[in-house]
Amino acid sequence: MPTPAPGSSSSPAAPQATARVVFQPSGRRGTFDIGTPLLDAARALGVYVESVCGGRGICGKCQCSVSEGQFAKEGLTSAAGHLAPATDKESRYAELRGLASDRRLSCQAKILGDLVIDVPTEAQTNRQIVRKRAEIRHIDPDPAVRLVTVRVEEPDMETPRGDADRLREALEAASGLTGLRFDPPLLASVQTVLRKGQWQVTAALYDDAGEPPLVIGLWPGEKTTAYGLAVDIGSTTIAAHLCDLTTGRTVSSAGTSNPQIRFGEDLMSRVSYVQMNPVRLPDLTRTVREAINALVGKLVADVGASRSDVLNATFVGNPVMHHLFLGIDPTELGGAPFALAVSDALTLPARDLALELAAGARVYMLPCIAGHVGADAAAATLAEAPGKGEALTLLVDIGTNAEIVLGNRDRLLAASSPTGPAFEGAEITCGQRAAPGAIERIRIDRVTLEPRFKVIGLDEWSDEPGFAEKVDQVGVTGICGSGIIEAVAEMYLSGLINEDGVIDGAMAERTARIVPNGRTYSYVIAGDGIAVTITQTDIRSIQLAKAALYAGVKLLSDKLGNPPIDRIRLAGAFGSYIDPMYAMVIGLIPDCDLDAVSGVGNAAGTGARMALLSRKHRREVEEIVRGIEKIETALEPDFQAHFVNAMALPNKADPFEKLRAAVALPEPKGGGEGADGGRRRRRRG
Amino acid sequence: MPTPAPGSSSSPAAPQATARVVFQPSGRRGTFDIGTPLLDAARALGVYVESVCGGRGICGKCQCSVSEGQFAKEGLTSAAGHLAPATDKESRYAELRGLASDRRLSCQAKILGDLVIDVPTEAQTNRQIVRKRAEIRHIDPDPAVRLVTVRVEEPDMETPRGDADRLREALEAASGLTGLRFDPPLLASVQTVLRKGQWQVTAALYDDAGEPPLVIGLWPGEKTTAYGLAVDIGSTTIAAHLCDLTTGRTVSSAGTSNPQIRFGEDLMSRVSYVQMNPVRLPDLTRTVREAINALVGKLVADVGASRSDVLNATFVGNPVMHHLFLGIDPTELGGAPFALAVSDALTLPARDLALELAAGARVYMLPCIAGHVGADAAAATLAEAPGKGEALTLLVDIGTNAEIVLGNRDRLLAASSPTGPAFEGAEITCGQRAAPGAIERIRIDRVTLEPRFKVIGLDEWSDEPGFAEKVDQVGVTGICGSGIIEAVAEMYLSGLINEDGVIDGAMAERTARIVPNGRTYSYVIAGDGIAVTITQTDIRSIQLAKAALYAGVKLLSDKLGNPPIDRIRLAGAFGSYIDPMYAMVIGLIPDCDLDAVSGVGNAAGTGARMALLSRKHRREVEEIVRGIEKIETALEPDFQAHFVNAMALPNKADPFEKLRAAVALPEPKGGGEGADGGRRRRRRG
Repeated sequence: MPTPAPGSSSSPAAPQATARVVFQPSGRRGTFDIGTPLLDAARALGVYVESVCGGRGICGKCQCSVSEGQFAKEGLTSAAGHLAPATDKESRYAELRGLASDRRLSCQAKILGDLVIDVPTEAQTNRQIVRKRAEIRHIDPDPAVRLVTVRVEEPDMETPRGDADRLREALEAASGLTGLRFDPPLLASVQTVLRKGQWQVTAALYDDAGEPPLVIGLWPGEKTTAYGLAVDIGSTTIAAHLCDLTTGRTVSSAGTSNPQIRFGEDLMSRVSYVQMNPVRLPDLTRTVREAINALVGKLVADVGASRSDVLNATFVGNPVMHHLFLGIDPTELGGAPFALAVSDALTLPARDLALELAAGARVYMLPCIAGHVGADAAAATLAEAPGKGEALTLLVDIGTNAEIVLGNRDRLLAASSPTGPAFEGAEITCGQRAAPGAIERIRIDRVTLEPRFKVIGLDEWSDEPGFAEKVDQVGVTGICGSGIIEAVAEMYLSGLINEDGVIDGAMAERTARIVPNGRTYSYVIAGDGIAVTITQTDIRSIQLAKAALYAGVKLLSDKLGNPPIDRIRLAGAFGSYIDPMYAMVIGLIPDCDLDAVSGVGNAAGTGARMALLSRKHRREVEEIVRGIEKIETALEPDFQAHFVNAMALPNKADPFEKLRAAVALPEPKGGGEGADGGRRRRRRG
Repeated sequence: MPTPAPGSSSSPAAPQATARVVFQPSGRRGTFDIGTPLLDAARALGVYVESVCGGRGICGKCQCSVSEGQFAKEGLTSAAGHLAPATDKESRYAELRGLASDRRLSCQAKILGDLVIDVPTEAQTNRQIVRKRAEIRHIDPDPAVRLVTVRVEEPDMETPRGDADRLREALEAASGLTGLRFDPPLLASVQTVLRKGQWQVTAALYDDAGEPPLVIGLWPGEKTTAYGLAVDIGSTTIAAHLCDLTTGRTVSSAGTSNPQIRFGEDLMSRVSYVQMNPVRLPDLTRTVREAINALVGKLVADVGASRSDVLNATFVGNPVMHHLFLGIDPTELGGAPFALAVSDALTLPARDLALELAAGARVYMLPCIAGHVGADAAAATLAEAPGKGEALTLLVDIGTNAEIVLGNRDRLLAASSPTGPAFEGAEITCGQRAAPGAIERIRIDRVTLEPRFKVIGLDEWSDEPGFAEKVDQVGVTGICGSGIIEAVAEMYLSGLINEDGVIDGAMAERTARIVPNGRTYSYVIAGDGIAVTITQTDIRSIQLAKAALYAGVKLLSDKLGNPPIDRIRLAGAFGSYIDPMYAMVIGLIPDCDLDAVSGVGNAAGTGARMALLSRKHRREVEEIVRGIEKIETALEPDFQAHFVNAMALPNKADPFEKLRAAVALPEPKGGGEGADGGRRRRRRG
């Protein structure tokens, strides 16, 4: 709880490059560059603040207030002065419509220092958890689309050149481009637009390497705003970001379920659906495109723009999503040699994909790395740039397939591992997707073996005051991926399971929460209402999934001679929400300095935005994909041995010395299935 | 009738560059380069000879025989030896299926000397008059489309490049092209085609200036034939030619009425229809595209090909046809400054125009010259190349607008004149389109004033034996454009009308064919069945039309200082069928050596084929249009004076000395409306 600090509004903004901001009541927090508008920070954290004018300081829906004072729990001091003074737009809004003295328009107010921000109920339009959020990332705009306003000579019988041709010459002169052409569907509107604008018009020019420069949009008079769309098509969730192409700012984000789920829960079931029902391929393609069209509708409505303002779009997705979106049969991806129909980056008209954007809009598809390592992994690699520094970096994007990139500027390797859907809560007895009511954090008392937990949608832990009163708002409905990881790790750390993952039935003597379940045992986390338990089968599922991932990482590491890993970056929805320590305790990720492990959010989405906003980044991702070495885990003879070792907690062969230095791991108990002398020898050695 | 010349089959082929060929029973004749296949010659003349195998010597439908002997009327000697010896294909056909000793396969037999060819009834599939025929013209093929067959590396997990990307690299290596890309709709079929062809495939590559090279078609295994389509969209008739892109040969031609006629008979009525009913613009666009799609269906069926084999198409048409075909509102073309929406050449995907060709087919639109001088005039200029030599050449394409090009290599001028539809038989009392039954030729006896005439569809003149028996086959239904020109000229030459075009009522005393018609007189050509008469109003219509054309020519000639015209080329359906002498007698064309006046057939269609078959010709037509000077007749103050002078026969101001040297023109009669001293003085001087 904040300690009010009277007069702190006069405290000067600290001369720092970044500031910490906590949004209440959600408690979401992040570190942002000085100068970031508050609204962008909220969006980046998935804190929903209503805004209907597109951040122009007109609608007044995005009002927030600063909670001033020293916040011990957060370790920061928040002050109204940590927001930049009111802009002209904000003052004008206050003058015209009135604005309470403690309220600011979050689209206008820029962060100058640490803040705790209170989002009033009326501005919280949507508290749904969208885990694929737009990460804050400064991207120097160098988009493929630019707007050029020109005045065109009027037609004249003496020089009877076509209106479009005179316009093209004016555009070439103004832009310095040569060989400019019109996207054919625009030709029909050229004369009307020229006359409506009284011979002054604004054109959107598309100019990207390898493409002939193209006029893709035309408006009468002046126009200064052009939008782009960056989309991450996941097998489960589609996340879309609308960006202002001139400022580089993400003005709106939205997500939706991938409706292809009705054709198959995971990738391979969709591939076999198409294989069995080839005539239904167009349906899978249509549903995902329709979902994207619906998202675009939401995004443009958010900012008061129209679909015809969206001139460029970038897409990332795993190979199956990539192919289905393009209307390509993914069957070849279902079996060796996992041949992609097309892997390189593609530029194509949005209308060829039935996307409802501007008539001339262009789509840039980021390249795929390999048959199991898609454009999403390429985009995440672009965003995290493991290949740019000396530090050996492991980048993992965990979905039903884990996509793994390991290396540094000298050498970069990529692979994928079939982790299955366990980390997404599927195939787990009480598993569920990350949604309100799901257990996302759990701690088990080492002595009493009693659990305390936190559910999505409530700020309080289950043993904190207020939880009991509020829990009915969301219920306790199940356990999501991050909750399962913590449950398994805590059970291991508290001795409920051994290093082989076996639930110790003897512990039933110490706690009623260990209950028999056929020939094995379960641990009961919550028993009121819906029971949430972890079964022996659940633990096996997690072991299989983490072993697959670890074996993949290990194969890449082998290729490099098993050097120490300097940094680990966990991308994707799941990777961002799991606790690195617990992930390492169960051996999901390899040994590393814990401080050097971090979630990087929707890195694929960030990469998609980078490619949207900058041609330089497009060239960069194309270069990355050309240079990266692809390892097919299925072809590697060592995979099986690595996999078997990785079934143990944290691992039967690898010592995890850095982890052991930070966390007291239990001594091996008896009852394991295999000899673990090898590990012990190494640990001792 | 031929005089048989026994033994003439042994007469050697004359060592000449061209030969004359007459096809019977149609009587159509033409002069062709030595080496031209007989089938091409027949097609060029609109003589229908059935052929279903695409000229491959397989179907045997195109059998013809040589009528040997000296043909006095034709002035030639025909011999079987004037066809090249049987080809291997022909011998093989004879061996397998049998071939009568006097029969040849006209697709195989090449012309070596003068010939009279008999087309057996079974090979005359269609005797309809298609006046927009494919002119014989040798075009060196250098098409934008080429077929490349490659073997592609199979996919391999170690180098997981997309199948399309490996294919692209193989194609780049084989073709020497760089930056090759796939037309997006092809991507979905790449994997299937590669596997069907067992990793050997043939791709169609599109490579034209300013375009990134593009893969537009893909077939398993080897493929050697690719087709292109050249279309001339006239306001009345659409003519389409299917060409083999590798050999340059026109393999099939077909024509159809322009269905837009239901929205307006002539150009300006269609423009005002769109102006009044803007929502119907898509209907005009759709109907013409559908008509073209239907023509393509016929053409490909003719040669046993499929629509997906048609990879490139070129289109010419006047500016209104050009715009309507592209879906562009032509309203601006309806009034000053007659602004074209687009004038330069365009390349666009056929699918953007709803054309049912290969999915990746490209369309090349030839450039327009000015608001009234379209891509058809540009194409005719390409075909006739007036700008290539020193001879001052007049090129006229007569439709409802006459498009006029005058000049030589030093300077080339273009204009259009609104001649109206009189030359097409419209607005003429007994006028009709050129179709069986229409009077196309007429002679009036200078003494008896009796007419003799020829109708389309019968070889005999009305006073020749056999006419009376055969005339019921087609009837005498009216008079077409060329017939009207001859009727007016013959009436003038025989003294029935004076130089001002007034029918002399006094002549009723000499012939019952001059009959009163209100306050004026008419001349009755045929009175049995349907009466065919020429009225005073008809003559006025022709005078107005020819005066408009002549005034336009005169304006261009003024710009050049009125030099003598060395050559006149009459393009288009009408221009090809009128007799140059009669056209000059009525003053439709300016004075010139009669031998230097010729019809050049569908020059616009020839230009479209040249642009289809050769990129060099595309650059050439683009260059022509850039260099040509456009004269807007409506802006020229002298137009009216030229027009008034040109109302007289042949002209009130210009002496027509070359014509007078060749043809005895009547001395001026009295009763004219204006003083004609000026002309007399000039003639005397």
